[in-house]
Amino acid sequence: MNTTNSIGIVRAQRAQFDTPLVFRSGAVLPRYELVYETYGKLNADKSNAILICHALSGHHHVAGVYADEPKNVGWWDNMVGPGKPIDTDKFFVIGLNNLGGCSGSTGPSSIAPETGVPYGASFPMITVEDWVESQARLADRLGIKQFAAVIGGSLGGMQALQWSLAHPERVRHVLAIASAPRLTAQNIAFNDVARNAILTDPDFHGGDYYQHGVVPTRGLRLARMLGHITYLSDDAMADKFGRELRTEQLNYGYDVEFQIESYLRYQGDKFAGLFDANTYLLMTKALDYFDPAHDFGGDMNKAFARSKSDYLVVSFTTDWRFSPQRSREIVQTLLHNRRNVSYAEITSTHGHDSFLMEHPHYFDVMRAYLDNVASEVSR
Amino acid sequence: MNTTNSIGIVRAQRAQFDTPLVFRSGAVLPRYELVYETYGKLNADKSNAILICHALSGHHHVAGVYADEPKNVGWWDNMVGPGKPIDTDKFFVIGLNNLGGCSGSTGPSSIAPETGVPYGASFPMITVEDWVESQARLADRLGIKQFAAVIGGSLGGMQALQWSLAHPERVRHVLAIASAPRLTAQNIAFNDVARNAILTDPDFHGGDYYQHGVVPTRGLRLARMLGHITYLSDDAMADKFGRELRTEQLNYGYDVEFQIESYLRYQGDKFAGLFDANTYLLMTKALDYFDPAHDFGGDMNKAFARSKSDYLVVSFTTDWRFSPQRSREIVQTLLHNRRNVSYAEITSTHGHDSFLMEHPHYFDVMRAYLDNVASEVSR
Repeated sequence: MNTTNSIGIVRAQRAQFDTPLVFRSGAVLPRYELVYETYGKLNADKSNAILICHALSGHHHVAGVYADEPKNVGWWDNMVGPGKPIDTDKFFVIGLNNLGGCSGSTGPSSIAPETGVPYGASFPMITVEDWVESQARLADRLGIKQFAAVIGGSLGGMQALQWSLAHPERVRHVLAIASAPRLTAQNIAFNDVARNAILTDPDFHGGDYYQHGVVPTRGLRLARMLGHITYLSDDAMADKFGRELRTEQLNYGYDVEFQIESYLRYQGDKFAGLFDANTYLLMTKALDYFDPAHDFGGDMNKAFARSKSDYLVVSFTTDWRFSPQRSREIVQTLLHNRRNVSYAEITSTHGHDSFLMEHPHYFDVMRAYLDNVASEVSR
Repeated sequence: MNTTNSIGIVRAQRAQFDTPLVFRSGAVLPRYELVYETYGKLNADKSNAILICHALSGHHHVAGVYADEPKNVGWWDNMVGPGKPIDTDKFFVIGLNNLGGCSGSTGPSSIAPETGVPYGASFPMITVEDWVESQARLADRLGIKQFAAVIGGSLGGMQALQWSLAHPERVRHVLAIASAPRLTAQNIAFNDVARNAILTDPDFHGGDYYQHGVVPTRGLRLARMLGHITYLSDDAMADKFGRELRTEQLNYGYDVEFQIESYLRYQGDKFAGLFDANTYLLMTKALDYFDPAHDFGGDMNKAFARSKSDYLVVSFTTDWRFSPQRSREIVQTLLHNRRNVSYAEITSTHGHDSFLMEHPHYFDVMRAYLDNVASEVSR
């Protein structure tokens, strides 16, 4: 990782919202907190703000480190910083932990003021649309009427797209990376297996495991193992692990035999010890539900008719979770609606995970596009 | 399903073997039983025998029905019968339940004579090589010195390949359908997630759940749900289910929302109620371990140097579990070794499951190849 141009020490901030938020499901959250970070300086006319939307397991700590945690580097530190493609010398960059998350914003593991115990199963089912509304309130709080850009990869890309549909006047550029206009049946199927692993874990207790002093570790571990298979390409796995054994000889047992098993189990264990299972469930459901065309009889072209933004769409050749074909669907819809859209299909062996990696062509595309965005912004 | 040419009423038979079988792992099984079925008549010089090897969840009941179970149709009844591609008017066809299975042959759920309780965790880890040895003993018992053909799809195809490596003189033709020379890291990864679902199910009890009066249903259900995703193609799922909802409106909960979820959960529930979890574990490990090149420094060409059979290799365009590329690897290895090999890449939308389906082009290829095999056989 290139840390030479790191933004350096950053600090998380909190915003409290006391106006009830009505979810797409009809549920109401009377009040909530969002934890966020900002990098760079908001210019005088507040025209240089960029919002970063995170994916399934992301959070507000996008770049830099904390003073007391010098090794806790933000998840997109290679992309965001002074002189980097998302240049904090030019832009005021905001990262937040989404509502329903488990990294500081109000979510299922937060104490519900009404009951004094964690929300658990009572936390509302959240959608991409709801996230955008909660993010819009944060923008209001920060005095940002219009974003120079909203940027996200994967599930974050869906939020970026939704911004241009819910608030077409408030976002000049959308950067949707390794994303999709809506999930396929296969995507939903993988999510449903992951969810069922958690839902059927005896330690899940219907989502109220906090009061039982347990965590559905087994289920969350399986969900993450499965996720990792879909983040990597078949080729990347073959290159990285192949059929390499962990020990010199075959052991003919159910312990780790092949290196790929070691990798997956390690990733599963690590994640299950850190992440909240209810948040994982919510995130996968938000993925499933997102479908801008749903309210337009399935017609994606109609759904995007209200958009006024410019777009950069980026996909990666070996991404089979959100394949280039899905990104081209976004591009077609945008072209149909006569939007300005740039599209880059990056040759990469790293599958869906490519969007987090420092790939020269990918970074050049991001930098070039955002340099143009910066040129529209007063300093 | 075409039942007009069904073989009709069939009967399962049993063979007891009292000579210890030494497994590739070094484990020894002192005695075992195999359950099998035969269709058609063995000719005078016993040259018209075909062995059908089953895949992960298959068994000996390949074709026909039972007198007392007229709806229990064999799993390959469309392929095997009088006048069908595997023509029981011409061939003497054998289907068996593999050792370690749960459909009648000795397996983890069988009572171990030494202890009086089910083998459970003590059942040896079995490999494709071990299966072929147990099948060779069955052939000996039936007086079959050489098979006209050994045929299998998926894991069954691996057994067919192994027959030509372990007993090159005993198999004239190998038909390997939707198979692979060995698994990729991604294949192993999917298997490992499925296994971990079972292994970490609290009802698994280290494999000795029989004595606890429980079954690791949750884990087996998840394993099967995941399996089904990999059996179907993305396109087939999109065509069959798309984003179709189960009810008219979104319900914003963890019950079934999309039809694909309903399908997967149904398949998972059905399977978990029928199949033995230990057998499932063994089958997936046999898949992982199969690698003819392992004893040849990874060189598949060397591994196949001892083969003397002719081959038909069949793959399906949308099969991403065992993609056409994997079948082409088999073909390349065979050509390198100057074997006679025919290869058919069938255009099909049904993914890995295609090998079980009645597809005209596929069936024509099978029929044409086996007509030639039949012409070599005396009547």
